[in-house]
Amino acid sequence: MELLTAKGVRDFAPQDKIARPQVVDLLRTTFELYGFSPLETPIIERLDVLSAKYAGGAEILKETFRFKDQGERDLCLRYDLTVPLARFVGMNPSLKMPFKRYAIGHVFRDGPIKLGRYREFMQCDADIVGASSMLADALCVKMAQSVFERLGLDVVIEVNNRKLLDGILDSLEIPDSKKVEVILEIDKLKKTSLQEVKKELKSKGIDNDAVERLMKILATEGSNIAKLEALKTLVNNRTAADGLKEIEQMLSFVDERNVVFSLCLSRGLAYYTGPVFEVFLRDSRKFSSSLAGGGRYDKMIGSYLRGTKEFPAVGISFGIEPILTVLELQRAEKEPKNTQRKTVTEVFVVPIRTTAACLKICDRLRNADIKCDLDIMERGVSKNLEYANTLGIPFCIIAGENELKSKTVKLKDMESGTEETLTVDAVIKKLKK
Amino acid sequence: MELLTAKGVRDFAPQDKIARPQVVDLLRTTFELYGFSPLETPIIERLDVLSAKYAGGAEILKETFRFKDQGERDLCLRYDLTVPLARFVGMNPSLKMPFKRYAIGHVFRDGPIKLGRYREFMQCDADIVGASSMLADALCVKMAQSVFERLGLDVVIEVNNRKLLDGILDSLEIPDSKKVEVILEIDKLKKTSLQEVKKELKSKGIDNDAVERLMKILATEGSNIAKLEALKTLVNNRTAADGLKEIEQMLSFVDERNVVFSLCLSRGLAYYTGPVFEVFLRDSRKFSSSLAGGGRYDKMIGSYLRGTKEFPAVGISFGIEPILTVLELQRAEKEPKNTQRKTVTEVFVVPIRTTAACLKICDRLRNADIKCDLDIMERGVSKNLEYANTLGIPFCIIAGENELKSKTVKLKDMESGTEETLTVDAVIKKLKK
Repeated sequence: MELLTAKGVRDFAPQDKIARPQVVDLLRTTFELYGFSPLETPIIERLDVLSAKYAGGAEILKETFRFKDQGERDLCLRYDLTVPLARFVGMNPSLKMPFKRYAIGHVFRDGPIKLGRYREFMQCDADIVGASSMLADALCVKMAQSVFERLGLDVVIEVNNRKLLDGILDSLEIPDSKKVEVILEIDKLKKTSLQEVKKELKSKGIDNDAVERLMKILATEGSNIAKLEALKTLVNNRTAADGLKEIEQMLSFVDERNVVFSLCLSRGLAYYTGPVFEVFLRDSRKFSSSLAGGGRYDKMIGSYLRGTKEFPAVGISFGIEPILTVLELQRAEKEPKNTQRKTVTEVFVVPIRTTAACLKICDRLRNADIKCDLDIMERGVSKNLEYANTLGIPFCIIAGENELKSKTVKLKDMESGTEETLTVDAVIKKLKK
Repeated sequence: MELLTAKGVRDFAPQDKIARPQVVDLLRTTFELYGFSPLETPIIERLDVLSAKYAGGAEILKETFRFKDQGERDLCLRYDLTVPLARFVGMNPSLKMPFKRYAIGHVFRDGPIKLGRYREFMQCDADIVGASSMLADALCVKMAQSVFERLGLDVVIEVNNRKLLDGILDSLEIPDSKKVEVILEIDKLKKTSLQEVKKELKSKGIDNDAVERLMKILATEGSNIAKLEALKTLVNNRTAADGLKEIEQMLSFVDERNVVFSLCLSRGLAYYTGPVFEVFLRDSRKFSSSLAGGGRYDKMIGSYLRGTKEFPAVGISFGIEPILTVLELQRAEKEPKNTQRKTVTEVFVVPIRTTAACLKICDRLRNADIKCDLDIMERGVSKNLEYANTLGIPFCIIAGENELKSKTVKLKDMESGTEETLTVDAVIKKLKK
């Protein structure tokens, strides 16, 4: 046997688990402040449930890990958190609407491995089921503002509306069958050149005139309100008007400080039916991928459940990996020379033949909520300091018999190397700062 | 398609996710206070890695969910967190010893379903690798004391030692090949009658005299120290003496207030080599299963890695399910009549044509860390109060134009039904209590 992890999965060593749970906790806390409650669905689902019509679709099913249990039942690993939400809603007909839930959990995709793409990764979703009002969509955007403010990241939240895009395509007489393809091309405008997108659209059979008119519409500039006004005259049909109205309503409920109405935002997924939004770092040269995104999907749950009931829904998903990447970039910029911490321990206690007393010191530190560890190897002082140093523990307490007699200990700042002789109370006071 | 979850797995609705994360957070916090750092290994592992010799063994392999990826690689779902720890230690030879890690994560077993047994469940383990000193074992016991104190549960921690049991069996001339069987029988003494165990032991070919002498030894009574002293004369061989010394050393590092040296505790797993411990509710009539347990396993990691290096190790595992069951029993005893909360939301805001102002009130509540939600359905007051009541939200804020003009809102206590007219600041002050 060779010691290996499976392809596309990762170990997170202690040093990788310092920032990660902080971000997850921040998301959890913010979701709850915004009235979302936690829902946990299992990692293992029945294959028929996750592969039903209106669930993930062919592309994602190809990437679903499948297996059988000992009773030969067909099972699989969940590939997202949305289909299990739909299943949960269907199985709990007495659920009060609106149902606002968040879910943070691992999902699995047996797909190709690229930089930053894994086969086992975490999704963090917040969704509102059962509310049609644009207040619900606005709440998602407001919550995104709050999350990134708390993270200390300067972001731009792009918003658009699929009804508006639909109306625009109607006005250009683009047939329904080609709409999704065209929408996917529009989404590429940020990354590819205008020429490239035009060429692609033409190769998909969209006529020259329509492509030119589409490009002209998409080039509408100005403030959010200016763009809305311009489009009211540029595109004149009911669907587009509905979309514009939804954008106006949604924006009326949010502080627009970092919200930009962006006609080129479409978000690929076919199931979106109204507002869509996506969050980017304002300085996109540093990091151009999206940090969060979502939108309204009024048809998906109802179609999946095949009942008579409709389940309007809107949700937002936060990307843990890109958020961690950006936070690390920002940290590295501020403190390029950094002793990496390999543990969450804040202070390491080194006894010099004073283990019993040091156990009591540890109890006092822990009662004061200080994360502490002590030598359990009966090593000498220098070996212990070396151990603490390698792990990046910021402070050591050295306790010899003489110090203890005078009811003090030595506190060593591992970065500066300075030592102070202090009472345990003084140590606690100092470390709590 | 019928809407079903897979066999042996569960949904946790919001009402099931209120106590659960609190317990997990408490464990996480306490682990970190005791110098354990988080390690996360993937849910998917290579089958050869988890099925290697000295990993889980035949019984557990039968219960391992297996599958292949698109590249026909043999994979499986982890069945515990210990073998992945051994793999991680093997793959990271520069890891500083002692390596103290905790892991909280889902594990999977394709086994029979019984009351309280699931196919997907959470394990919470803390382990110390690389330390032989009884200080390490004592730290696990101390941490267990701390965890249950913080949980408000009155427990007894039973401790024993496998070297001692081994020595006792040696003194009775029970052959090595039968030791594990006999140890498993001893473990049953708590649950079955003495007669039953005697019968079983005899049926396993242990002679009458040995069984009687064993029962006499196991019946040793008294305080921890009295039992230790009695056994020193009752069992006279090197292995037993080593075991007794380990118990003495371990106990010297802990406050024995709720620690009981119990000769009948053996913990089934073959891999334990020294101290074993298990935590029970003191009032065992209320709940008799163990809440946590662990022990020293000095051989397992080294054997699994098949190198020349030894990896002494000791660990403790906390049972989320039994802990939650006991906490719920305790809660139900204290407050039998309980409006079950179905959400973490603390206050629900009901606008009466004052949505814009209410959005600002929500912002203020959230800035004060109060979990709040507001009507997004444009429902009437009574419908909104009914919604909040069904979800068990403890407070509602009702904001009409008149109240807002006088810069106040109505705060309704949903349990007592009382209403007060207060400023938002006064509401915040009241809710923060």
